[in-house]
Amino acid sequence: MAASRYGADMPRYALLVEYDGRPFAGWQRQADQPSVQGAIEAALARLEPREHTIAAAGRTDAGVHGRGQVAHCDMDKEWDPFRLGEALNYHLKPAPVAIRACAAVDDEWHARFSAVERRYLFRLLTRRAPCTLEAGQVWRVNHELDVEAMREGGKHLIGLHDFTTFRSVMCQSKSPVKTLDEIKIDLVDGLAGPEIQFRLRARSFLHNQVRSIVGSLERVGAGAWEPIRMKEALEACDRSACGPVCPGDGLYLTGVGYPDDPFAGM
Amino acid sequence: MAASRYGADMPRYALLVEYDGRPFAGWQRQADQPSVQGAIEAALARLEPREHTIAAAGRTDAGVHGRGQVAHCDMDKEWDPFRLGEALNYHLKPAPVAIRACAAVDDEWHARFSAVERRYLFRLLTRRAPCTLEAGQVWRVNHELDVEAMREGGKHLIGLHDFTTFRSVMCQSKSPVKTLDEIKIDLVDGLAGPEIQFRLRARSFLHNQVRSIVGSLERVGAGAWEPIRMKEALEACDRSACGPVCPGDGLYLTGVGYPDDPFAGM
Repeated sequence: MAASRYGADMPRYALLVEYDGRPFAGWQRQADQPSVQGAIEAALARLEPREHTIAAAGRTDAGVHGRGQVAHCDMDKEWDPFRLGEALNYHLKPAPVAIRACAAVDDEWHARFSAVERRYLFRLLTRRAPCTLEAGQVWRVNHELDVEAMREGGKHLIGLHDFTTFRSVMCQSKSPVKTLDEIKIDLVDGLAGPEIQFRLRARSFLHNQVRSIVGSLERVGAGAWEPIRMKEALEACDRSACGPVCPGDGLYLTGVGYPDDPFAGM
Repeated sequence: MAASRYGADMPRYALLVEYDGRPFAGWQRQADQPSVQGAIEAALARLEPREHTIAAAGRTDAGVHGRGQVAHCDMDKEWDPFRLGEALNYHLKPAPVAIRACAAVDDEWHARFSAVERRYLFRLLTRRAPCTLEAGQVWRVNHELDVEAMREGGKHLIGLHDFTTFRSVMCQSKSPVKTLDEIKIDLVDGLAGPEIQFRLRARSFLHNQVRSIVGSLERVGAGAWEPIRMKEALEACDRSACGPVCPGDGLYLTGVGYPDDPFAGM
């Protein structure tokens, strides 16, 4: 258990969090704008009135959605994890944030530092008509895309690389060298039209890495870039070699991996 | 072509319409509340300034969504159908209504009276956590449902029956006798959790028929009703034998069938 401000041990709980990113300035708490972290901390303060600071596996940007975000909180008293999750959901209303599961963890466990994998989904809808039901939940382009060419382009990024090209200049990571474990690209014939789903998996990502990669792959799919240009862009290690960074609307943090999944069986 | 108020023939256009039902009091135009019909008629008035009255295949209720609603409009001048659709989409913003396709049809063709099939989808999410990304787009129940039992119960409704039990007392249909061609029930393992999708198909539906059927089938899935009770409820021809009518949030008009599909190949 973590030391509390009273010197006692504080029980720690892992939270599996889902949210609609549209009304938020991002995960991270901000003084003057709504954030997912701020919403959860405010709900915690309804349960134990004091300042709360929670940590998360991934600090998603404005408009980016959470499906399987993981955070942890330290409480003064022992909570039944199920009741803690239900109580948070009650106090989170009407914010579009939900606790999907809650589990007691030991104080060594950290939502961010214990994580060994992050999984993202990016949804790209190809149709002319504006979005209605999916507004803010997909990136829409009004031209067809060559999925096979995008798959070929994406293969060049798999493995250990210097991802400087696909990294925001604001990125605070110490190193641009990361291992990208997977880029899976599926064409789904959804009710809203043909949808291309990109699934990316890595131990950790750089700031804007997924949006930089998807934005560049869209250029490949549109025929503006040859697939090999993904390799050339990567090897350039130059931010200006990146394609247009796509909007965050279609991006979802779908899951976080831990050596021992605290939510196993939930 | 239809006769215009000027006595000239008016070119008629079929519109394939998608909408998010949440902000609307329903399809039908109302004096003091936003409606999908009203939004489209207002957009038409931006193109040809006068009163417009459009007809639709299905007059969906408040909160019910359209994926493949079909309507038609009569215009004073000839429009290139593609340009008419694009112009409407431009003027529909920011309402969550989109014209997915537009086609010229002859004046005998009527969105409602020419239709020979309506298809509905109902999405039911089974999980405890409140909805975030799907809020207003699914019906959520927080208990598990037996899909096989629901399939068994649903089979009793297929075919030609008096559907008085599954019909709103407000229903204006001349007869409660309808032929239900299909009830398909699929369990989908979605990102938001287990989702049960009901697909119903018929030449036409009674008011609240889909919601009455799904609400009753939910009772079967929950174990509160034996599957055979669907048959008993149907044969009772008594509205009070119906299960609870479920909310419209999960309901989508997905498509309308015509002897000659005006949007074929679009």
